[in-house]
Amino acid sequence: MNRITLSPRIRTTPFHDATVAAGLSDITVYNKMVLPLSYGDSKAEYDRLINDVAIWDVAAERQVELVGPDAGACAQYLTARDLANQKVGQGYYVAMCDHEGRILNDPVLLKLAEDRFWFSLADADMLMWCRAVAAERGFDVTVREPDVSPLAVQGPKAENLIADLFGEHIREIRLFRFIETELDGIPLVLCRSGWSRQGGFELFLQDGSRGGELWQRVVAAGERYNIGPGAPNHVERVESALLSWGGDHTPDSNPFEVGMAKFVHTDIEADYIGKAALRKVASEGPERLFVGLIVESDIADAWPLPERTSVTIDGEQVGTMSAIVYSHRLEQTIALAQIKREVVEARAPVTVVGPGGPNTATITDLPFI
Amino acid sequence: MNRITLSPRIRTTPFHDATVAAGLSDITVYNKMVLPLSYGDSKAEYDRLINDVAIWDVAAERQVELVGPDAGACAQYLTARDLANQKVGQGYYVAMCDHEGRILNDPVLLKLAEDRFWFSLADADMLMWCRAVAAERGFDVTVREPDVSPLAVQGPKAENLIADLFGEHIREIRLFRFIETELDGIPLVLCRSGWSRQGGFELFLQDGSRGGELWQRVVAAGERYNIGPGAPNHVERVESALLSWGGDHTPDSNPFEVGMAKFVHTDIEADYIGKAALRKVASEGPERLFVGLIVESDIADAWPLPERTSVTIDGEQVGTMSAIVYSHRLEQTIALAQIKREVVEARAPVTVVGPGGPNTATITDLPFI
Repeated sequence: MNRITLSPRIRTTPFHDATVAAGLSDITVYNKMVLPLSYGDSKAEYDRLINDVAIWDVAAERQVELVGPDAGACAQYLTARDLANQKVGQGYYVAMCDHEGRILNDPVLLKLAEDRFWFSLADADMLMWCRAVAAERGFDVTVREPDVSPLAVQGPKAENLIADLFGEHIREIRLFRFIETELDGIPLVLCRSGWSRQGGFELFLQDGSRGGELWQRVVAAGERYNIGPGAPNHVERVESALLSWGGDHTPDSNPFEVGMAKFVHTDIEADYIGKAALRKVASEGPERLFVGLIVESDIADAWPLPERTSVTIDGEQVGTMSAIVYSHRLEQTIALAQIKREVVEARAPVTVVGPGGPNTATITDLPFI
Repeated sequence: MNRITLSPRIRTTPFHDATVAAGLSDITVYNKMVLPLSYGDSKAEYDRLINDVAIWDVAAERQVELVGPDAGACAQYLTARDLANQKVGQGYYVAMCDHEGRILNDPVLLKLAEDRFWFSLADADMLMWCRAVAAERGFDVTVREPDVSPLAVQGPKAENLIADLFGEHIREIRLFRFIETELDGIPLVLCRSGWSRQGGFELFLQDGSRGGELWQRVVAAGERYNIGPGAPNHVERVESALLSWGGDHTPDSNPFEVGMAKFVHTDIEADYIGKAALRKVASEGPERLFVGLIVESDIADAWPLPERTSVTIDGEQVGTMSAIVYSHRLEQTIALAQIKREVVEARAPVTVVGPGGPNTATITDLPFI
């Protein structure tokens, strides 16, 4: 029953034909768009990411652009992080919350100019949210989805590959910094970022008609680095504790409950949506925390759980587990969970239900590696 | 490559196990939830819908509930239709628009009480939109997603089946009218509605833990009517011109451009989002219209197009086609398209690109049947 029908309601990406030609086997739907998940050999895809370099179609990471005189003020009002010191050419990992402090998204916010920003988004219709707020609040800003499609190049050899393509100066781009550039006339934003901790860049293609061309150009330059197709890697993201927004937490979670405490600033002068609610959570402490689990008996799985499962102590639910994998590098089974704070603080052993049935697990800090 | 990975980010429905047991073969993702599309025999599913009765898991049609003193005022502000005469127990098919008049959704709005409404939604995160507007506008209303999962029973024998289950009084429920009731203690809203024109009801299950039980109860009672599993039927919905919001139109369309003109009231006293923009469209006329096409050479297809394709005249694009199917009842190939108004008014022949290549087509009014 895991066969999906594509239809006009679900968009393909500018790299779609290239991914199919490369052997795409498994997908998900993300922001009503096709997001590749695997090309049929998840262990090889993991190894490539850890040791060499992989090319990922992550165009489903959609952008919402704010442009106009109030773009900066609007971006701040939409964001639970202090933007006062954000430089042009700098990305910030931010939490966008609703008026009750519930997290709506965890995008990277790119500041392209004093009056131009992109939210580079996880899976939710933030274009609508931003338009609702901008219009009701009267900000003088245009909110739109630009023709921008990220292509990620991830892994330890990504920097050499990108230097071969763009020049040695790209080595000086720091984490989450970006430049506007081009490749054979293809307009791009080149950012040191990506949904892994193995290093790499995201190429924000600014002309959807040239996706196939960009893919081929990167693959050709990557041959000497053993490049191959890949996708956001489930095992690596668990090892690195990268949040899967919407999957790793309950719908009513605040940013403190999904591991984003250090990106939330409740004591700044600027107002933003959810600030009062978040200040209350900051002072009282969150009800739940996002933590790691070391699972006692190993499982072989490297694939997502179909749904969150219960974390219990003596049969009583104390949280939910959202991912469980065998870590090739740690040589143990690890998991991600959202668990009641008092249980986390007591470091009590818990019971989880993975693909192989119930298992004992111990709570640990994140990331694992 | 059409294999989808389920994960905690994409929810299954309360009827999921029952649909899998019934032979579910093809799905889509709708409101970040599994929406069944077929059980492997699309012609049998069509025949069952036209001649007998089918059971559909449409729990992906999520509800947003407004409850509180300002629920009615908030519902009106979110809706481009006059709600002044809507009765408790009545559903209205409505357009929700943004401040520029772009259509964001085409839900059925159910009025459960003077201070309680459900938007029964197409595929978009309207919970966020409604919360943004309610909070920024200061409405005294709670906006939430209730535990409600629609199960549809569609086809000419649906009324008999529902009468067997609930009693003869249900025959008096008019189109889009509903009652709050129960079945063996399972709390339900029973509405004469559904995404087909073959008649039937939607059972809005109000306890997600009892989905399997409800499914079995309906199937058992339906045996004498030749019930079988089905899903929103692509061929029937094209024949009946039921809008697939998000698939049948460009993202910047207003309701006049998706066939919803008669549900948009621009001359009422009440204010609502997008009213000024829609009034302008109403006076100047929309740029495009949603129309039918009779296609010259028959195709055999009964499955969605993977994406919208161009509609042209002499090589110049005049619109987009979103669906093309062979109609078993009309014995011809028909299509849905959004086409420039002047072309529609001239009834000029157009060229479309279907699964079998280019084809000549003539414009016609909707619905086909």
